[in-house]
Amino acid sequence: MTERFVYVVSDRTGLTAEAMAHSLLSQFPTIDFETKTAPFIDTRAKAEELAGDINEKALSTGCLPLVFVTLVDDTIREIINRCQGTVIDLFDTFIGPMERALGQESSHSVGKSHGVSDDAQYTSRISAVHYSLATDDGMETDHYSRADIILVGVSRCGKTPTCLYLSLHFGMFAANYPLTGSDLTERSLPPALEKHRDKVFGLTIDPDRLLQIRQERYSGGSYSSARACQTEVAQAESVFRSARIPFVNTTRMSIEEIGATILHKTGTPRKI
Amino acid sequence: MTERFVYVVSDRTGLTAEAMAHSLLSQFPTIDFETKTAPFIDTRAKAEELAGDINEKALSTGCLPLVFVTLVDDTIREIINRCQGTVIDLFDTFIGPMERALGQESSHSVGKSHGVSDDAQYTSRISAVHYSLATDDGMETDHYSRADIILVGVSRCGKTPTCLYLSLHFGMFAANYPLTGSDLTERSLPPALEKHRDKVFGLTIDPDRLLQIRQERYSGGSYSSARACQTEVAQAESVFRSARIPFVNTTRMSIEEIGATILHKTGTPRKI
Repeated sequence: MTERFVYVVSDRTGLTAEAMAHSLLSQFPTIDFETKTAPFIDTRAKAEELAGDINEKALSTGCLPLVFVTLVDDTIREIINRCQGTVIDLFDTFIGPMERALGQESSHSVGKSHGVSDDAQYTSRISAVHYSLATDDGMETDHYSRADIILVGVSRCGKTPTCLYLSLHFGMFAANYPLTGSDLTERSLPPALEKHRDKVFGLTIDPDRLLQIRQERYSGGSYSSARACQTEVAQAESVFRSARIPFVNTTRMSIEEIGATILHKTGTPRKI
Repeated sequence: MTERFVYVVSDRTGLTAEAMAHSLLSQFPTIDFETKTAPFIDTRAKAEELAGDINEKALSTGCLPLVFVTLVDDTIREIINRCQGTVIDLFDTFIGPMERALGQESSHSVGKSHGVSDDAQYTSRISAVHYSLATDDGMETDHYSRADIILVGVSRCGKTPTCLYLSLHFGMFAANYPLTGSDLTERSLPPALEKHRDKVFGLTIDPDRLLQIRQERYSGGSYSSARACQTEVAQAESVFRSARIPFVNTTRMSIEEIGATILHKTGTPRKI
């Protein structure tokens, strides 16, 4: 495998630039990229030091690093642009065309993207996280009237991380309820869920993958047996079908994909 | 305020494209953007339907919408490129230059970015989330030897959401410990923290903002009084200084910024 060095340079957190770089680099799967993120590059001095590092890397490896850049300040960007690297400017490339399309100049101000733009929005996001914690794993079902969504499924199918993701990212009041015991053998939804059925969304998972996840946590015992995983998953899917609850199989999905799929399928408006 | 319509089009979740679009649009603060994300546009039929919607919007508003695109498939991209909008291609714009710099063609495969590329990585990420839940708010301090980081601060300064963010996004085993009562009046770290002091990181917050956050949750009582907020914050900062614990003020920061700052300041290597 070829190795290539990659720098992600940003005047703020670098999170957006990192995600974009990752997405683009994933199109070259046979190259082994070694990525270094340089966040908070917001002074000339920092930019010059970083450019020096990049030049050294180019010299020592005999190969130009890829340099992904989101820098708002022209002077700082110029310093990075002059380095010995292949610069991919994720920001400036589009600002010109956008200025022409929108008929006005951009503000050239740093840090509008991930800052606390709005105290009320921040507070509601935090409230959502605390709501999801309080209603995790079937707790506080009497608070379901405040829920935006209630995820339902067998133990360890991904409910908790998905709820936390939905609350952290989208400010959703996301509760979750585990299907266990008699909930699995009934043909209808548990009473706590029945009156909020329009908010209920099912998660399912391949039994083999569930087995693997459960065994990593608690090996031995019927909970982490192949038979329990097969039976529970079949029962849960049967509950979803007979109660006409939409559901999604999480086996091949990341938490981000599960979250985006739920938003998409339920048409839930985002709060953030 | 002018209003402009924006479409974010992706063959997968659209999360990266959304973040990039948001970052670029924030440079035009006087325009009121109405953004619609169209994820999972992975067939010609879906692309044609969407292009129709965009054309209709252009016609009804008399103004070309901005269309941010990350589409790997050439045929699907072509359909969107022909629509009545200003297309900002976040993906294809850079793939050509990258192919030349890397000396090879890109794989043109969809969904490498947010998929479950690696079961072991997924499992460790989920383990991190469960670790953070189990060690939230000073619980299970005997598990601190497994921690990557232990966040410390007064109640409601942002510890829990930050821990969940660090575990969800970066797979970090992030615990948190609240400073209350006698912990605040001592000049040294609480015993549970002392032996893990190299992992301890402080969060602080402006007393006014803390007051606002506490009052929204529990109004009345000394917990949400201006005096308690001022005293506790001063005491916590004094503990950080005398114990020589690095800390950051979260008042003007989003959870993403707090997380990125902690990674940057501690030099913690990312697990994901």
